[in-house]
Amino acid sequence: MFRDFFMLSKSQIKHINSLKIRKYRDEYQEFIAEGSTLVTDLIGGGFEIAGVYAQSQWISSFEKLTRDKNVPVFETAPKEMERITSLSSPSPVLAIVKIPPDDSESLKEADALSLEQLLPGLYEDLSLMLEGISDPGNLGTILRIADWFGIRNVFCSGNCVELYNPKVVQSSMGSVARVKVHYTDLAGLLEKLNGRVAVYGTFLKGDPVYSRQSLKNGILIIGSEAHGISDDLTPFVTERLFIPSYGTSVNGKAESLNAAVASAIIISEFRRREL
Amino acid sequence: MFRDFFMLSKSQIKHINSLKIRKYRDEYQEFIAEGSTLVTDLIGGGFEIAGVYAQSQWISSFEKLTRDKNVPVFETAPKEMERITSLSSPSPVLAIVKIPPDDSESLKEADALSLEQLLPGLYEDLSLMLEGISDPGNLGTILRIADWFGIRNVFCSGNCVELYNPKVVQSSMGSVARVKVHYTDLAGLLEKLNGRVAVYGTFLKGDPVYSRQSLKNGILIIGSEAHGISDDLTPFVTERLFIPSYGTSVNGKAESLNAAVASAIIISEFRRREL
Repeated sequence: MFRDFFMLSKSQIKHINSLKIRKYRDEYQEFIAEGSTLVTDLIGGGFEIAGVYAQSQWISSFEKLTRDKNVPVFETAPKEMERITSLSSPSPVLAIVKIPPDDSESLKEADALSLEQLLPGLYEDLSLMLEGISDPGNLGTILRIADWFGIRNVFCSGNCVELYNPKVVQSSMGSVARVKVHYTDLAGLLEKLNGRVAVYGTFLKGDPVYSRQSLKNGILIIGSEAHGISDDLTPFVTERLFIPSYGTSVNGKAESLNAAVASAIIISEFRRREL
Repeated sequence: MFRDFFMLSKSQIKHINSLKIRKYRDEYQEFIAEGSTLVTDLIGGGFEIAGVYAQSQWISSFEKLTRDKNVPVFETAPKEMERITSLSSPSPVLAIVKIPPDDSESLKEADALSLEQLLPGLYEDLSLMLEGISDPGNLGTILRIADWFGIRNVFCSGNCVELYNPKVVQSSMGSVARVKVHYTDLAGLLEKLNGRVAVYGTFLKGDPVYSRQSLKNGILIIGSEAHGISDDLTPFVTERLFIPSYGTSVNGKAESLNAAVASAIIISEFRRREL
């Protein structure tokens, strides 16, 4: 049976591929998401979708969702998908998603009291602060961990990798649609919060996290892989935590854990105490 | 001051670059390692080094180590390093390392008793079994976790990514020099061990790992990201574990955790009980 496919225009292909580069994401305020779970999570999560490029079978399966949310859908042949994908093998669906408005200005202007209104859970739940996480896979994985453990607020320093980098979006596995991420001046925020919440930091030395009797909610700072928590933020840390090493090899031992792995172990320690 | 550098020959460059491909690693039984910590960990860990290509400053700093271990050293100009590196910016040192002899045959032939001699710690410590881990970054990260937590034996199924893939070697951050990794038939090994050790498996449903009173040593199976633990291995699992999710978003929650992250949380739970 002959089937007529929608053909992507040259300018569409060029536009989609341009979004792989940050400069154009900033200019158009759009980013790319690929894969069925990720795309449906973003649509369901209230993101504005500029367009969905998908194979006919995907379109049939998600007709109700895309119609309910007024998503423009373009049926696209597998051969055409290959021309726009960032993946080694294209998924059946790619979406162009609008970047939501930035809240960094309102955070900057808020005082300690109004912060609580802007950021529900800030004072009575665990929040995460990421300093200089530069590997996109690490940031995406940390967002997935935050999502799993129900963390509502993640703060990133300006020198963290950009949230809408395709590798961050992909490795978050849809969590980018659920976890609220704020890029802001971390020291400025901590200064405003001074004394209102416990500030935990992970270091290579400190109190072994396992033997801590109480881990109250507060803010957990994760430093960059290369440099840890900077001298700018260290003075704000009220509780130093570390993960004991059990290395036994005569040839030394691992010097550190990956930033996402360390985040997971510490966050797990907070949550297990709530049981 | 004029300085004469060793020039890499065309055939050397070709050989080194060929090792980025598995076929040639298998043929030559060599792999590539880059970065000072990784290279010195491998030299210190008793790996046989076919050659070290390094900038003069690195050579001066590690002269004693390379001389003590009889490592052939080739001084290499930064421009030349660019022609052989796999990294986006070359490190000051690259080593060609001999792949150690494979022990899979001896494991296959061993019975339950002799296994204990071949694999010290197998019956009284925690070992790791990885099924179908295909992402090189995940395998490297899991080895780094195993190293940190003092796990001596890691068993990989044949369909795990190859240990000497450059991305595995790099993301292990030197742990590949310390953790013993065996590629073997996992079901065959579990059959031999039947009843001698507890076999833990991570699932999306099971006993919440936090509320388990006792986690004895044994074997922990980590399934592949896409499919979890296969039907072949599931019957061997004596204790099902899962990591509770705390997701609260109205837009759903993370469906799973990354395989390395899940490994880290569960292994951390084993170790914390030893305190």
